[in-house]
Amino acid sequence: MIDSIAKEHKKLKKLYDKGNNPLDELSSLAAECLLLISSQTGKEEYSRSDDKKYLIYSSNNSKSRPVNSSLFIESSEEFQKGWRELLGSIDAEKRSSSLPEDKINNVIYTAIMGFCICFDIWKPKSRKTPGTHFEVLLGSLLQQFLPSFTREKFVTLPEQDEKVSTDIVFDEGGKGLVIPAKITTRERIVQPYAHQRILDSIFGESRYRSILLCVSETQRDDDNRHVNDICVPGTLKLFQAHLSKLAGLYYLDPPSRYMNKDISDLIVVGNFGKLLKSDLKTLVG
Amino acid sequence: MIDSIAKEHKKLKKLYDKGNNPLDELSSLAAECLLLISSQTGKEEYSRSDDKKYLIYSSNNSKSRPVNSSLFIESSEEFQKGWRELLGSIDAEKRSSSLPEDKINNVIYTAIMGFCICFDIWKPKSRKTPGTHFEVLLGSLLQQFLPSFTREKFVTLPEQDEKVSTDIVFDEGGKGLVIPAKITTRERIVQPYAHQRILDSIFGESRYRSILLCVSETQRDDDNRHVNDICVPGTLKLFQAHLSKLAGLYYLDPPSRYMNKDISDLIVVGNFGKLLKSDLKTLVG
Repeated sequence: MIDSIAKEHKKLKKLYDKGNNPLDELSSLAAECLLLISSQTGKEEYSRSDDKKYLIYSSNNSKSRPVNSSLFIESSEEFQKGWRELLGSIDAEKRSSSLPEDKINNVIYTAIMGFCICFDIWKPKSRKTPGTHFEVLLGSLLQQFLPSFTREKFVTLPEQDEKVSTDIVFDEGGKGLVIPAKITTRERIVQPYAHQRILDSIFGESRYRSILLCVSETQRDDDNRHVNDICVPGTLKLFQAHLSKLAGLYYLDPPSRYMNKDISDLIVVGNFGKLLKSDLKTLVG
Repeated sequence: MIDSIAKEHKKLKKLYDKGNNPLDELSSLAAECLLLISSQTGKEEYSRSDDKKYLIYSSNNSKSRPVNSSLFIESSEEFQKGWRELLGSIDAEKRSSSLPEDKINNVIYTAIMGFCICFDIWKPKSRKTPGTHFEVLLGSLLQQFLPSFTREKFVTLPEQDEKVSTDIVFDEGGKGLVIPAKITTRERIVQPYAHQRILDSIFGESRYRSILLCVSETQRDDDNRHVNDICVPGTLKLFQAHLSKLAGLYYLDPPSRYMNKDISDLIVVGNFGKLLKSDLKTLVG
């Protein structure tokens, strides 16, 4: 079953790379992951130093990354219904969904985390595949909010033999939205800042804006059966002040540290519901 | 024997972290590595697309990273003699060694690669230790050329709760030399550029200069029994033009791609012999 999931992912990626938005296939694939999880895994709760609840799914001795149980929809039927509602709720003119924030968040969280759980447990060596799938999922979905925009994976630089590879770029009428998509950032948070700086240097500061889209910053600590958030608030402040400006930092499961005032005074931080209900319109406006 | 090497490394790191330069201990440790390698490993040559010759050392089914046989000194006696000659050749006033370039390079290459080979084969899970050892080795050795400079691992920022961690920093009289030390860079080459940019932004452009010190950019391809260089010339040009300026890029085993004119027109590239015979004086002058 994991092989059919891996094969389906490859098929979707090919479609996506050709410019398609395989939304129905993304839903079916997520549902397949949820069925596999509910039939083949056990789960246990790990402790937290706040009131969030995280489950670790496992099969034999293979474990998943931590899953926020208040965001994750276990039922494949319920997920598929939510996915249809999300797609149906999109008003492309307003660049906005009419669903409640938490519903938007939960559906997207489930679509990516179901896939992650399966790969963590049954294909742990394919470490980069979940990140690729996240990119395909977000690019396909965001295109529904921005149907008239072209979608690329990079920005081509004038008079240079180099491209800036930035996961997802939506472009229209001389305005570009650059979207690095990372399941977690860790030390890689430097990259979107460096890219934005380079784009500012080459194109001027108003041509491209960057938003970083992530799942979470959680880390599983098996020794203590605990779930940590790995945050780098000092680094984030330093980069935002001295390297370049990101236009926003959006998480499906935002680490509470980054919602504190010292960070949110400097940079917009929020969940995907906030992005897809209100912020996206401003970002491309 | 690997356990005594690992234990000795930890001891040296502690001494180094307290501000010492354990040069004799570094030599003994390297010699111990060379003895272990010569008594316990086999070696085979992998192919190349240029005329460099690389050997892979192995024991049971564990393999080392590629070793440039024209740089690596297999004899522990010969290495220890070379190390003593290197230390004896340093003129701290001139910031320079009187040894020939290739001798400087070979001795330092052997000191770090002997350690790497042992960890690759017998402690492959300790993936970060060789990088740490490289830092200890370089910091201790460079201090001999810059005895009056203070040595730190980071730059403390005024009026901020953050430090910029940059592996090695030598500072004297309002001039700082920042030295990121990486065995290979790969995609991490963005980091020294981002750090230099932040330092320029906070302190102005003349307070700190950065040089990146590396071993090589080689990668072992077991399927084809081949050694590749993984280079990112386009990225390097982009960063040097639009992110910040590194004052130099020094390799023990420089990838030939980075010695080409299109790169060396933009950034000083050379081996450690060049750095320690001529360039260091200019960099701190």
